[in-house]
Amino acid sequence: MSKSRNFFLENIPLDEAWSRFITAMEEVWAWDEMPGEEVAVDEALGRVTAKPVWAELSSPAYHASAMDGYAVRSTDTIGAMETAPKRLAIGPAGPATYVDTGDPIPAWADAVIMIEQTQHIDEPDGGESIEIHAGVAPWTAVRPMGEDMVATELVLPANHLLKPVDLGALAGCGHAFVNVRRKPRVAVIPTGTELVTVEQARRCGLKSGDIIEYNSLVLSSQVRQWGGIPTRYPVVPDDYELIKATVLEAAAEHDLVLVNAGSSAGSEDFTSSIVVELGKLLVHGVAVRPGHPVILGMIAGFNRPVIGIPGYPVSCALTGETFVEPLISHWLGLPPREQPRMQASITRKLLSPIGEDETVRVTVGRVGERAVAAPLSRGAGVITSLVRADGIVRIPRFSEGVEAGQEVTVELYRTPAEVERTLVHIGSHDLCLDLLAQYLADSGRRFTSANAGSLGGLMALKRGDAHLAGAHLLDPATGDYNVSYIQQYLPGLPVVLLTFMHRQQGLIVPPGNPKGIGGLADLTREGLRFVNRQRGAGTRVLLDYHLGKLGIAPQQILGYKREEYTHMAVAVAVQSGLADCGLGIAAAARALELDFIPLEMERYDLVIPRIHYESDLLRPLLELINGQELRRAVAELPGYDTSHMGEIAGQW
Amino acid sequence: MSKSRNFFLENIPLDEAWSRFITAMEEVWAWDEMPGEEVAVDEALGRVTAKPVWAELSSPAYHASAMDGYAVRSTDTIGAMETAPKRLAIGPAGPATYVDTGDPIPAWADAVIMIEQTQHIDEPDGGESIEIHAGVAPWTAVRPMGEDMVATELVLPANHLLKPVDLGALAGCGHAFVNVRRKPRVAVIPTGTELVTVEQARRCGLKSGDIIEYNSLVLSSQVRQWGGIPTRYPVVPDDYELIKATVLEAAAEHDLVLVNAGSSAGSEDFTSSIVVELGKLLVHGVAVRPGHPVILGMIAGFNRPVIGIPGYPVSCALTGETFVEPLISHWLGLPPREQPRMQASITRKLLSPIGEDETVRVTVGRVGERAVAAPLSRGAGVITSLVRADGIVRIPRFSEGVEAGQEVTVELYRTPAEVERTLVHIGSHDLCLDLLAQYLADSGRRFTSANAGSLGGLMALKRGDAHLAGAHLLDPATGDYNVSYIQQYLPGLPVVLLTFMHRQQGLIVPPGNPKGIGGLADLTREGLRFVNRQRGAGTRVLLDYHLGKLGIAPQQILGYKREEYTHMAVAVAVQSGLADCGLGIAAAARALELDFIPLEMERYDLVIPRIHYESDLLRPLLELINGQELRRAVAELPGYDTSHMGEIAGQW
Repeated sequence: MSKSRNFFLENIPLDEAWSRFITAMEEVWAWDEMPGEEVAVDEALGRVTAKPVWAELSSPAYHASAMDGYAVRSTDTIGAMETAPKRLAIGPAGPATYVDTGDPIPAWADAVIMIEQTQHIDEPDGGESIEIHAGVAPWTAVRPMGEDMVATELVLPANHLLKPVDLGALAGCGHAFVNVRRKPRVAVIPTGTELVTVEQARRCGLKSGDIIEYNSLVLSSQVRQWGGIPTRYPVVPDDYELIKATVLEAAAEHDLVLVNAGSSAGSEDFTSSIVVELGKLLVHGVAVRPGHPVILGMIAGFNRPVIGIPGYPVSCALTGETFVEPLISHWLGLPPREQPRMQASITRKLLSPIGEDETVRVTVGRVGERAVAAPLSRGAGVITSLVRADGIVRIPRFSEGVEAGQEVTVELYRTPAEVERTLVHIGSHDLCLDLLAQYLADSGRRFTSANAGSLGGLMALKRGDAHLAGAHLLDPATGDYNVSYIQQYLPGLPVVLLTFMHRQQGLIVPPGNPKGIGGLADLTREGLRFVNRQRGAGTRVLLDYHLGKLGIAPQQILGYKREEYTHMAVAVAVQSGLADCGLGIAAAARALELDFIPLEMERYDLVIPRIHYESDLLRPLLELINGQELRRAVAELPGYDTSHMGEIAGQW
Repeated sequence: MSKSRNFFLENIPLDEAWSRFITAMEEVWAWDEMPGEEVAVDEALGRVTAKPVWAELSSPAYHASAMDGYAVRSTDTIGAMETAPKRLAIGPAGPATYVDTGDPIPAWADAVIMIEQTQHIDEPDGGESIEIHAGVAPWTAVRPMGEDMVATELVLPANHLLKPVDLGALAGCGHAFVNVRRKPRVAVIPTGTELVTVEQARRCGLKSGDIIEYNSLVLSSQVRQWGGIPTRYPVVPDDYELIKATVLEAAAEHDLVLVNAGSSAGSEDFTSSIVVELGKLLVHGVAVRPGHPVILGMIAGFNRPVIGIPGYPVSCALTGETFVEPLISHWLGLPPREQPRMQASITRKLLSPIGEDETVRVTVGRVGERAVAAPLSRGAGVITSLVRADGIVRIPRFSEGVEAGQEVTVELYRTPAEVERTLVHIGSHDLCLDLLAQYLADSGRRFTSANAGSLGGLMALKRGDAHLAGAHLLDPATGDYNVSYIQQYLPGLPVVLLTFMHRQQGLIVPPGNPKGIGGLADLTREGLRFVNRQRGAGTRVLLDYHLGKLGIAPQQILGYKREEYTHMAVAVAVQSGLADCGLGIAAAARALELDFIPLEMERYDLVIPRIHYESDLLRPLLELINGQELRRAVAELPGYDTSHMGEIAGQW
């Protein structure tokens, strides 16, 4: 089968694309703010006022006592002193009458004396009085009518997002209903013959080529979060007429139509042609990455905007943030959402193409005086990069990228305070770090981890990019771990070398070990495909050490140059049949139900600069490492030995 | 009727109160995090994971093409060059097969060549080929199985607040349901015989002593906003047994019971006795202000915490923030909510009692280089002080207050970015400022206004506390407005004096003018009660000027010393019969349907330091003042003349 492109994508700068879109909407009133609708005040939380609201009643609606006490005429109290108390008879017409907090004060009164400042007297004649020891000024302890709100005064402006106290104010000045902007209705139409629902996937399993459809779930949730009402359509197969009919039906009933995906220029990318047929194609291709194949258009008959949203999950979610959120905010009369920003130093060099605005997901933490931003996967298909992101960095289209160590602005998905209590780990990855993160969360610490291999972690410590680095670097000369590497790579940096655990390294092979692999010597066997770890990984160092002992040269091994970055990626390569074996930890083999040939128990340490080791921030981590709870949890995992956990293996 | 206190309130420091509360809950497991419940992933937005979630399926579930193009064996492409292209036949078993983005690559292939980098050839034998001009490395344009998530790997930790992309990741790795913490159920019980609903108030009007009940609306909305499920009970009258029965019923069905109010120590404050009878009273009175009369307790039979919440609306809302929110967050496994903070200079001295933590509501803006925080009303009954607040300042209990100009920490209710685009007005108040605020909002500017009188405004400019000050200060010597005051009070500060409008000042009298007041000469009449404005108010200056011309001394006027701070407060005093007349603007009289005796059209200017006048921040304000839209809106209000709007009345 051969295919060709229908046409090529444009590469329109974001601001130009956005401005074309707005202009087209303005022409047909689709850029107007949403009309108002009356809702009960007790259902108006989070809604936005469509008009200014004026008080209907004053609050308080009368002159009210601010205390439990006695209403009096201030003139009657003049001259009362500790040495010469005054006595006021209690009676409904004065000169003293009891009032509770909030009670109206009688018309003849102009002040209230707190009950604690009065003495109650039973008079011989059966009457009652109070005795007071000080005079009071007029209006003491009185809340004048309208103190809070005066009828006819402005209480809330238009375009105000209603908080709990706002609702109280509305009810307090006599409003049972409030006029709020109608919620924008947004149709979310997933298209694609290859798509299955997660329910189908669970029921019937996934065939090769099946993709679980979840972009419409993300888009619908975004719409709901931003204040709109989503309609999530069932998946429409790649059929031009079916998609067209669905778009048309959706346009009739919604303020905005989102079509996902088919927004590119491939053979089954129908969205642009459909938009051309049904109305006007304004933009096809925006100079952003991820998220280039975006379509902006108008459906003619209903004058409704339509957005074709790219299919890669990260592109999809970011397109929602870029185009859908500002539209909803505008319709609701709200200012554009503003993320908190912070300056941070980027931990590694990022190349970015000239001509496209690029969005890079990062984790962020403060290491000593510096805030550091560590880039996550830039793959548009890696939704977990957004799940784990603490924020994003934008590389503008007239820039070729950023250098390692360069200052960048991070738009935070978290509060700056969360960043302050984040422990930044860069180094070798191990499943136990996930456990550690879980336990640390209970102590109010966040733990972010970037996999850079053991040596990469030491280099990160040298640059001041991380609080700690997990490492398991075997020194072939001594048989010890990490010590000589620290001496070589971190001279002059005071660090503590803390043992986390020992773990089983070995060969990961398919279930049943079909090739009958017995050890590393078998790797040179004709046709046996190995999968390796990247340079600088402790596991690769371990491999090279043992190959050296066995006298095996790298070029004797098929696949020695095929590098993966994690134990799990090695296990996946074996599971999927791309490789016959790889070196990795027992836990990764167990996780994917693969077989495992043990090679060596290796020590996995945490390398921690002393300045962080002694900091408040890391104290909970040290408590966990030295306590019993985490030790028990790690010991339960297959292939781990915790008998040396918490021991200091060296310090400099 | 005489009353006495049941007992006095304690004054327990906040941290001690909170620790007693937690300890009691820990004893009976009521401090435990909420148990999990399964919800569909598409209903889980904003919920919190109760357990870590591990991937059930890998994503992608197979090696997938990352592009539209041809799957190939990389070894087949070696040697292809621009000058020596290679030709690969198209066929299902290779060496080239078309794949769409997302398609699985065939088992024999290990790379994909983008369609744009191939040339399609129709072979003479009827077959098809592609021609390529460069070799590709293994795994080019292939997303390996598990690139995003590997089955069995951790996807989300426990206690994670679910965002839209998280839901996508959950579905993407095979989860149709997710285990989330049950939402805490919170009973909100309003008590008080004086309370009416806003619906009742609208239907039957308010009798003197009636109070519209809205605290339960605020508390319920807070609970919902923080992630709980509120049950808002109908108002329970002040009847010990009724309230007790309601609390007991609520405790059986909720995780937390809130009783509002009756939490103080007055004659009808039953809550503490009820808590004593039903369980344990832990705290009665916390050393905070507002919000002192708080009750913390446990209901014994059901082991449910109960909070008695004070009745003043500000105390009520702040008690929600102080005690209810952290409880709900803890139950949901979330860290305590963290407001963004900023340092600001407080605009006026605040005295605060030793021994109590005080919460002061403030508006915040940045004036030049300084952030300034202007305190709002400290009255616990003034809910609008919370509505208008940009944040709060806490004055700790071991402090006597803060001096004007002192640096304080503001916990912001807004983002720092909102603060940056805030125009700070301090000075004379006028209804037109509300209009101005409305129009400015459309230009992306916030406008906060503090009423300090005309002279107070000039002093604020002198201190650098405001961007602009509204002023209408008549110079008796010249008959001109503001000029001589600016020369006297702001020497050396370059300012622009911009005319906003002219407005009608006059005497505000009850409808029908029952006392037959004709002008200022009548103010000396026997028994006629006047209400004055505060010193420094332009209206007071105007009064004194005319009194001087008429030869009337202040002491000849009954009520000259009774000061109100706004035109509306003067109008309210007249409307409620506390005064027979006052001096103020026509608009205030009209608003409350009072009669008005015109005295003089006065000029109301905006005094703007040149540095702000020329700033970006104020540009939208100048555009409005010089445009037609605002002019028309002001001209429509009774008593305003806009013919000089936008004229520069002086500059220095």
